[in-house]
Amino acid sequence: MKTRAAVAFEAGKPLEVIEVDLEGPKEGEVLVEIRATGICHTDEFTLSGADPEGIFPAILGHEGAGVVVDVGPGVTTLKKGDHVIPLYTPECRECDYCTSGKTNLCQKIRTTQGQGVMPDGTSRFSIKGEPAFHYMGTSTFANHTVVPEIALAKVREDAPFESICYIGCGVTTGIGAVINTAKVRPGDNVVVFGLGGIGLNVIQGARLAGANMIVGVDINPARKAWGERFGMTHFVNPKEVEGDLVPYIVDLTKGGADYSFECIGNVDVMRQALECCHKGWGTSIIIGVAGAGQEISTRPFQLVTGRNWRGTAFGGAKGRTDVPKIVDWYMDGKIQIDPMITHTMGLDKINDGFDLMRKGESIRGVVKF
Amino acid sequence: MKTRAAVAFEAGKPLEVIEVDLEGPKEGEVLVEIRATGICHTDEFTLSGADPEGIFPAILGHEGAGVVVDVGPGVTTLKKGDHVIPLYTPECRECDYCTSGKTNLCQKIRTTQGQGVMPDGTSRFSIKGEPAFHYMGTSTFANHTVVPEIALAKVREDAPFESICYIGCGVTTGIGAVINTAKVRPGDNVVVFGLGGIGLNVIQGARLAGANMIVGVDINPARKAWGERFGMTHFVNPKEVEGDLVPYIVDLTKGGADYSFECIGNVDVMRQALECCHKGWGTSIIIGVAGAGQEISTRPFQLVTGRNWRGTAFGGAKGRTDVPKIVDWYMDGKIQIDPMITHTMGLDKINDGFDLMRKGESIRGVVKF
Repeated sequence: MKTRAAVAFEAGKPLEVIEVDLEGPKEGEVLVEIRATGICHTDEFTLSGADPEGIFPAILGHEGAGVVVDVGPGVTTLKKGDHVIPLYTPECRECDYCTSGKTNLCQKIRTTQGQGVMPDGTSRFSIKGEPAFHYMGTSTFANHTVVPEIALAKVREDAPFESICYIGCGVTTGIGAVINTAKVRPGDNVVVFGLGGIGLNVIQGARLAGANMIVGVDINPARKAWGERFGMTHFVNPKEVEGDLVPYIVDLTKGGADYSFECIGNVDVMRQALECCHKGWGTSIIIGVAGAGQEISTRPFQLVTGRNWRGTAFGGAKGRTDVPKIVDWYMDGKIQIDPMITHTMGLDKINDGFDLMRKGESIRGVVKF
Repeated sequence: MKTRAAVAFEAGKPLEVIEVDLEGPKEGEVLVEIRATGICHTDEFTLSGADPEGIFPAILGHEGAGVVVDVGPGVTTLKKGDHVIPLYTPECRECDYCTSGKTNLCQKIRTTQGQGVMPDGTSRFSIKGEPAFHYMGTSTFANHTVVPEIALAKVREDAPFESICYIGCGVTTGIGAVINTAKVRPGDNVVVFGLGGIGLNVIQGARLAGANMIVGVDINPARKAWGERFGMTHFVNPKEVEGDLVPYIVDLTKGGADYSFECIGNVDVMRQALECCHKGWGTSIIIGVAGAGQEISTRPFQLVTGRNWRGTAFGGAKGRTDVPKIVDWYMDGKIQIDPMITHTMGLDKINDGFDLMRKGESIRGVVKF
């Protein structure tokens, strides 16, 4: 079939919105009509050329929502008409990782997903007879895409696509980091570095978990109001702090953060996030994706005196299990999504959405098909 | 009173065994006759001058056992004749750290302990009228020492001093790291870097906890037999591994360590210990003390893909509570100590004990008074 997609032909160039060819779903695969997709920093990371594993031409996008149009042989858990959210972290429920009970990092299709192809090693997308690569197993910057069955969360049908697409990445990553990875408890003090599309969701996750102080840290003063909207109790602008940031935050939190979250991808901030943790038990969780080859450092004394350094991907969420619950939380008003979606646009304007994100003017831009 | 002590007058110089003056115990303090003391790498770290907080002249030693001779005003939990193990990590059971339930790092007397004095800010030791510093709040390289009540674990009276002194540091640090910090479970795969006085206790802790593979890593081939004696199932000599050590260990453990332990103090090994952990959940625990100013590094991707970087001090043990239990384990034959005590000597020969340790010829040297 033919479908419209925003294609990344080359690193550092704008996307091109064109008609592409899409093969139907093979064994264990599902054809999805994407109705809405968010634009995330990870797409920009790959498009910019900073991602060492980036390959082109590719159809980017990993934060979508849509409707099942067709299913391939052997698909048993989804049928035409089901509403779904594609998962860049699948959940096969069979591999050693899924069954370990200790991680969400399903490995069933990891290798082929990283190579930009479906599990059988081929791509469903092509342009003028030449294959184009899938991206993160999702490729939601296309009006139709093919996704493995194990990489689709079935969600309720009354939830609006243009809101819940954000659950495909930012919302789940932020809230999940608090709930699944950190397991924040009522009364804990939380510090969040970077109040963008992830950090604001960490904040609302911390509020949901009953945190005491929720300190937001950002060099953009406009983000103060944003943080407060979702539950932030204290704002710190590092540019306005005299002296070192770490002792300032340790003092503010009366000993340090029980949990800190790095939502930027800056290795220097990752160090600050660790070192502002409470001696004896504070845990810092890295969410942001650093540039290729960059490294984090600290003195081992920081760990020997009881701080823990951890990370999380997709908020530690098992997508098929957890994403439908987060959709329920949104529909029940337990969490907010709509105020964070600052801009919507058609696919033709997707490059404008990237520009708004690069300038820090949007929290989330969403493409509606 | 007068007592004999091995005094560190200057960094890098041998200890001098001389008569020193010791004041009696003040409020909340206890006079202890030390009957035996181990010689540990941490003493050497300070004596060598590598410890940036090292101060001289000082009476080193932190791995002792002895008998209460006298108690100061206000001491209620100990009396003359009690057998005790001094604790460089005290347990006041009152401070925010003790009552948190999350750490063993009691902060009650931390500042003065770091300054080499008793909680009132003065030293009980003097030499020719000039004060000499305490060390780690214990100073067990003296036949008599004064220790705060909260820094003494009361232990059973039938346990031999020359064995249980080792519980004052090495045994508890190694076994505790496994049991209290890592919380190793039956079936877990464990990798231990450095099979000295700490690493061998990590091995026997892992055996006690029911670990599956217990892999020991050391460049000294003589340590293979030592590791096997305490439960090691596989030995890796990095000098005999072709190619990189990390993938070798990941392969050996079929995916990586569930828990790894760094027992050396080498920041490059700390990185290897982290990176050989299992994707998704592996946890690396730093026990070794690195040199001043040295830093650990890794790519944040290691953490984002589910590895955890932690540390531990005194094996996460709360000394007054846990040390008596470990003495029981030794007396009940659950753990071994005696085979690790390879050399015993009088106080006059303490410098020989340091030499044996520096050459890697001893596992533990113990001074008997």
